[in-house]
Amino acid sequence: MHATTIYGKNDVRYEEVPKPELITGGDAIVRVVAACVCGSDLWRYRGITPVKHPARIGHEFVGIVESVGDTVSKINVGDFVIAPFYDCDMTCVNCRNGFTTSCLEIGWWGGKDHWGNDMQGAQGEYVRVPHADGSLVATPGQPSAELVPHLLTLADVFGTGHHAAVSAGVKQGSTVAVVGDGAVGLSAVLAAKRLGAARIVLMSRHEDRQNLGRDFGATDIVEQRGDEGIAAVKALFDGVGADAVLECVGTKESMDQALRSARPGGQVGFVGVPSGGPELPVRQLFDSNVGVRGGMAPVRNYIDELLPEVWNGSLKPGRVFDLELPLSEVAEAYAAMDERRAIKALLKP
Amino acid sequence: MHATTIYGKNDVRYEEVPKPELITGGDAIVRVVAACVCGSDLWRYRGITPVKHPARIGHEFVGIVESVGDTVSKINVGDFVIAPFYDCDMTCVNCRNGFTTSCLEIGWWGGKDHWGNDMQGAQGEYVRVPHADGSLVATPGQPSAELVPHLLTLADVFGTGHHAAVSAGVKQGSTVAVVGDGAVGLSAVLAAKRLGAARIVLMSRHEDRQNLGRDFGATDIVEQRGDEGIAAVKALFDGVGADAVLECVGTKESMDQALRSARPGGQVGFVGVPSGGPELPVRQLFDSNVGVRGGMAPVRNYIDELLPEVWNGSLKPGRVFDLELPLSEVAEAYAAMDERRAIKALLKP
Repeated sequence: MHATTIYGKNDVRYEEVPKPELITGGDAIVRVVAACVCGSDLWRYRGITPVKHPARIGHEFVGIVESVGDTVSKINVGDFVIAPFYDCDMTCVNCRNGFTTSCLEIGWWGGKDHWGNDMQGAQGEYVRVPHADGSLVATPGQPSAELVPHLLTLADVFGTGHHAAVSAGVKQGSTVAVVGDGAVGLSAVLAAKRLGAARIVLMSRHEDRQNLGRDFGATDIVEQRGDEGIAAVKALFDGVGADAVLECVGTKESMDQALRSARPGGQVGFVGVPSGGPELPVRQLFDSNVGVRGGMAPVRNYIDELLPEVWNGSLKPGRVFDLELPLSEVAEAYAAMDERRAIKALLKP
Repeated sequence: MHATTIYGKNDVRYEEVPKPELITGGDAIVRVVAACVCGSDLWRYRGITPVKHPARIGHEFVGIVESVGDTVSKINVGDFVIAPFYDCDMTCVNCRNGFTTSCLEIGWWGGKDHWGNDMQGAQGEYVRVPHADGSLVATPGQPSAELVPHLLTLADVFGTGHHAAVSAGVKQGSTVAVVGDGAVGLSAVLAAKRLGAARIVLMSRHEDRQNLGRDFGATDIVEQRGDEGIAAVKALFDGVGADAVLECVGTKESMDQALRSARPGGQVGFVGVPSGGPELPVRQLFDSNVGVRGGMAPVRNYIDELLPEVWNGSLKPGRVFDLELPLSEVAEAYAAMDERRAIKALLKP
């Protein structure tokens, strides 16, 4: 079969690799129908995170189950399935508490499973799923081709935007500011709208992203950044800031902007992977009573809630994909996202 | 009249000072019936926060209204009143949002009001209250002497413990760990119990505080600190930690202990005034999805909710006072708390 391997900075290759086989009784082999490139994949592509040795890459996929191990009981051969961006058992205490990203038997696509076996990257033709009954969610039937991109967002990007909104406590009537206009930020707008936000400010200076943001529910756009951006957000909300701020970037600057855009007693929901560890200013939080909550999104826990609205077409989170390529052109998908020619690229094996 | 002035390290004096007079139409003059010493007062007493010039001190009091300005409409002469540890208008957007500690017209006892006028410290015979209709809460009638200490805790310490529990999201059935066995930590135990916590671990190594903590609702005591303390807390909660951790100290060590005692997806409510600014490790928060929320407690917003149960005697938060002295012996009150001979000292002018 073919899959994607990252060799180093600006060097991802579509190449022939061994097809995975069942190992544990709980495994499934899934034929990938669609995968995609994540903003976090670009860290290694850009050399920000060093690539120490060639590695399989990609962690978002949907597909069809080709085979299952002896102990798999909920997932069947032929099911169309959505996988979260990690492997989890859905039975341990952390999974039961709703935080599958802290599963006691967690595994990572392109890395290792709980027992130390290799896991395939999702940007490939086949993937072995160690906890098939835990990780995979079968859709109610076979989806149309049009539905596939929307379903694929449940693997990571839409669930992550939803996590930002949930972590920030967005509810009916909330005022919301979204920092970041990438695929996650745009997903966060859609998630905030879905949760009933009364007003949503998207901080963006790119017209195409502003337009999609408006379609997703943004009521206002703020183009300024830093102190000016914060002042503009506060001016929209009684001079004091938003109830909820969704931080979808992960830099020191974006976190600072988020913390200072929240009203006293407001809440920042953050899902931007912290790059370089800007620490949170505890005295500023203390004085303002602004809370901070978020992290790696437990998207598996969210699929059950979000899938029905995606399945029936009332939510269209897959609009964040503005480029679709065959998997064989994965290198171009990375380049397009790196050069910001695309918000998010979908790949078809 | 007499009041307390802090002159420097280990130097608080009971001395004669001018009696306050009405300045703004919204003022009230309150005759203090009871005041107390706060753990945060000890910062200056211990020289941790330098005393640049002699200053009036104390920020917790209850008393009887002696006179009111022309525009005061809710508070009447003769009312027994509880004041929060700050002055607030209860009409601005932040007050309406429930965060009176960010009142746009805030003032501080012993400091300045919104307009720059001096405010008396609470450890004195009389205090001018700039926003009488906002800050003060009149009790349903004149309290018995026995009730006074319990009412006094609504000025700060019990409301602050309650804020820790609210900020950590404590609700029916929560598992809770409390870091800190001072008056605030013990109040946090009582608040968590009141909110329905199923199990409350108090981290304490002092027998008298353990006993009061048990009376307040602690189900378990952990004496260890650091890694051992964290392991002991986790062992009590499925090996992963508590749903809610109430940080009531404010040091780097206590915050670290709190963050690592919370289960993945748990929440730390912090009310310990951060001493020296240990910053929060954002990557650790991201990986664990542990949220952090808290700060200066908006105790004025909480009085309406908490007062009925204090008034009818079903809650006895005033048990944190284990020393009562006449105001003239204020220096001994500070010394007793500094030397940990007392948990919290009540002063009667």
